[in-house]
Amino acid sequence: MTHAPNLPLAGLKIVELGHYIAAPFATRLLADLGAEVVKVEPPGGDPVRGWGSSVEGNAVWFSVHGRNKLSVTLDLKKPEDRDRLVALLKRADALVENFRAGYLERIGLGPDVLHQANPRLVIGRISGYGQEGPYRDKPAFGAIGEAMGGLRHLTANPGQTEYPPPRCGVSISDDLAGMYCAMAVVSACWQVKGDPQAKGRVVDVDLVSSVFSLMEGMLPEYGLFGWVRQPQGAAIKTAAPTNTYPCADGKWLCIAGNSDLIFKRLMAAIGRPEMAGDPRFANNAGRCDNVAELDAAIADWTRTKPAAEAETILEAAEVPCSRLFDMADCATDPHFRDRGWVMEVQDPLLGQVLHPAAPFRFDGVAPRDMVRWTGPAAGAHNEMVFAAAARGESRPLTP
Amino acid sequence: MTHAPNLPLAGLKIVELGHYIAAPFATRLLADLGAEVVKVEPPGGDPVRGWGSSVEGNAVWFSVHGRNKLSVTLDLKKPEDRDRLVALLKRADALVENFRAGYLERIGLGPDVLHQANPRLVIGRISGYGQEGPYRDKPAFGAIGEAMGGLRHLTANPGQTEYPPPRCGVSISDDLAGMYCAMAVVSACWQVKGDPQAKGRVVDVDLVSSVFSLMEGMLPEYGLFGWVRQPQGAAIKTAAPTNTYPCADGKWLCIAGNSDLIFKRLMAAIGRPEMAGDPRFANNAGRCDNVAELDAAIADWTRTKPAAEAETILEAAEVPCSRLFDMADCATDPHFRDRGWVMEVQDPLLGQVLHPAAPFRFDGVAPRDMVRWTGPAAGAHNEMVFAAAARGESRPLTP
Repeated sequence: MTHAPNLPLAGLKIVELGHYIAAPFATRLLADLGAEVVKVEPPGGDPVRGWGSSVEGNAVWFSVHGRNKLSVTLDLKKPEDRDRLVALLKRADALVENFRAGYLERIGLGPDVLHQANPRLVIGRISGYGQEGPYRDKPAFGAIGEAMGGLRHLTANPGQTEYPPPRCGVSISDDLAGMYCAMAVVSACWQVKGDPQAKGRVVDVDLVSSVFSLMEGMLPEYGLFGWVRQPQGAAIKTAAPTNTYPCADGKWLCIAGNSDLIFKRLMAAIGRPEMAGDPRFANNAGRCDNVAELDAAIADWTRTKPAAEAETILEAAEVPCSRLFDMADCATDPHFRDRGWVMEVQDPLLGQVLHPAAPFRFDGVAPRDMVRWTGPAAGAHNEMVFAAAARGESRPLTP
Repeated sequence: MTHAPNLPLAGLKIVELGHYIAAPFATRLLADLGAEVVKVEPPGGDPVRGWGSSVEGNAVWFSVHGRNKLSVTLDLKKPEDRDRLVALLKRADALVENFRAGYLERIGLGPDVLHQANPRLVIGRISGYGQEGPYRDKPAFGAIGEAMGGLRHLTANPGQTEYPPPRCGVSISDDLAGMYCAMAVVSACWQVKGDPQAKGRVVDVDLVSSVFSLMEGMLPEYGLFGWVRQPQGAAIKTAAPTNTYPCADGKWLCIAGNSDLIFKRLMAAIGRPEMAGDPRFANNAGRCDNVAELDAAIADWTRTKPAAEAETILEAAEVPCSRLFDMADCATDPHFRDRGWVMEVQDPLLGQVLHPAAPFRFDGVAPRDMVRWTGPAAGAHNEMVFAAAARGESRPLTP
C-alpha cells in the first residue's frame, strides 16, 4: 500500500456517486491513472457488490471494479449526510455520477447547487439517454444502449435464423459510456487546471449515443445513399476466405486467409493444394463468388482438429488466425502473463486473486504498480475521508 | 468555420501519425473535445480514405473520421520530411501514432529522439499487442483483438451451432484502444500542464488488452474458482423471460420481462393472461426452469407483428423492450434528432451529410458546434501548418 508510482493523474481528486457499472467503471479507470477516487455508497453498499460470486460476502468482481478507490458510505436521504457529501465535493476536482437523469436535482444537489459550493467542480453525468430529450425518463435497462445504438443489429447472422442475435456478452454500453465520461472529465479538468478564472463544466454522457459513436461511416452513407448496413455474421462479404470455423473440441477458429499468397499457404496447410491452383480461386473476386465451397473445405479440415492444434498448424504456415480465447486461454497465455495483462494480486478480503492490467501503460510504471490496492469493503474509509474533509484537507488521501 | 465554442481541450495541440482506425479515432475524439489535431498522412493519404463508399473520390466515412482535423502530407522516407515532422512535434503537446510496434524507432524517430526535440511531448502509441512481449511482432489483423481479448467467445450462441459466433460488426478493438489512448494522453497532458519540471510520458496501448479490460469479474472468478464464462446467446440464464424474439418483418425485438409485475403485464399484452396466473411462472426461479415454454409463447406473438408495432404495444404496457435499431431507425428516431445525435452538416467535398454527435456534451455547447469542420482532403493544410511550424508559431491553428 505504499507504492508511489509516477502516475499521470496523481493529485486529481474525484468523488464517485456511482452504482452498478458505468460511473464506477469510469472512476476505476481514473483511479488506475492515479487519481484519488472517493466512492460514495449507500449504507448497504453499491448493489453491484451483490453481483456474481463472492467469498464470505465479498464480491469477487469488486476486487477489480473497486480497486484503487476509497469507499465511504452516506445516506443521501439524510440532510447531514448530504452536507457531508458537499464537504467532500468542496475539496474535489470532479464528480462522476450515474443516477437517473434529474435525480441529483430532485435531492437538491443539482449542478447549480454544487457549483455554488465549488465553482471549479467538473460534474460528469452518465444516463441511459442523456439529461434531456423525449426519452430522458425511460428506464435504461441493460441491453438498451446496445440495441438502440445500432450495435446489436450488426452482431448477428444475416436473415432470421432460429438463433437470435447474441448479446455482446459484456455490459458494452455501460463500459463505453464510462470510458467517454472518464475522457471528457479529464479533458474538463485539463481546461480548469492552471486557470484561476476557469469554471467547472457539466459533462453529459449517455449509453445510447456512446454505442452509436462506433457506427463508422454508416450514418453518412445512409444520409447520402439510403444504405442500411446489414449484419454479415462471422464472414466478411468482400474478402474471402475470412470466417470462423468449427473445431473438433467444440471450439471455433477465426481465419483470415484472403490475400492471394496467404490463401495459397492456407490451402496447402489444410492438405488442399489443388484448390489453391484452381483458377476460380485465383483472386479475391473469384473467391468471394465461390466462398461456400472454400468455407466447406476449410471447415472439413478444422472439424478434424482441436482449435489450439489447428491454430498451431496455421500459424506455422503464416496464416493469420486466432481461436476465440475464453478466460482460461487469456489467463494462461504467455503474452498475457509477460505483459502483465494477467497479474496475481493479494486481496485482504479474498486472498490471492487475478487482476487484469490497466488498459494503458506509462513509461517507468509496471502494470503491477498501477494496482495500488484492491476493492475495499463499503465504508472502509469513512473515518479517514470525513475527517480530512472536515479539516478542509486538500492533499490526496491514500489508505 | 468561425465557431469558437467553449470546448475543454481548446489550446491543446496534437499531432497524429495515424492510419486506418485506432489512432485516427483517438484523435477525432480529441478534436471533438476542442484540441488542434494535425493529421500527418503519406502523400497518397491515409489508406482509410479508400474504404467504403465515396463521392467523386472523397470517402464518405472520412467526413466524420477526419472532422475537426487539419491534414498535412509528409513522406517519412525523406529526411527533409522527417525534419518537418519534428518541427511540428516541437510545437505540439502530444503525438498519437499506430504504426507497428517499433516502427518509429526504425525510422529514427523513437521516443528518445522525439523527447530530445521536445522533452514535454506526450507520446501515445497504439499497437496490436503492445510495444513489448512475445507477440509484439505478430501481424494484428482486424478481428484479433476481439478474439484474443475474450469478447468474441462471448458474442455467441451456446454450443456449436451451424452459425459461427458473429463478428461484433464494427472495429471494436480499434475503437476501444483509440478511446483508451485518448484518455491516457489527456491524462498525461494534465500531468504536464502547469508544471515546468514535468517531462512528457510515453503511453503504450494495445488492441488485445483494451478488449480484455471489459471482461468484468471473469478473470478473478477464473483465478479463484476455475470458472470459465460461457456464451449465453441472446438470453440471460438467470432472468426469465429475457430474450430477443423474431418478428413478422424479419426483424427482432429484445424484451426484458423478468420482474414479477412486468411479466404479468407482458403476458396480458400478448393475449396470454392465463400464463401470468400459472403458479409455475409465479417467480423468476420458476420462469427460468420453464423458460422454453415462455419464450415459445412470446415468439408466437411477436411473429405475428412487425417489430415496430410489437414494440409500440409492449411500451404501452410498460414492458421494457427495444427493436434492434438499424441505421434507418437511428437516423429517423425523434430522440436521436432532438438530442443532436444525428445532425445535418454541410461538407464542402460531399454536400449535405449526416454526422453523429460527439459522444459527450458540455454545458453551453450545442452538438452542432462540436463539428467545427468536416474531414478535409489529404494535405489541405500543408501550407498553413508548415509555415506556422517554421515560424515556431505556438497558437492553435484553425482553417
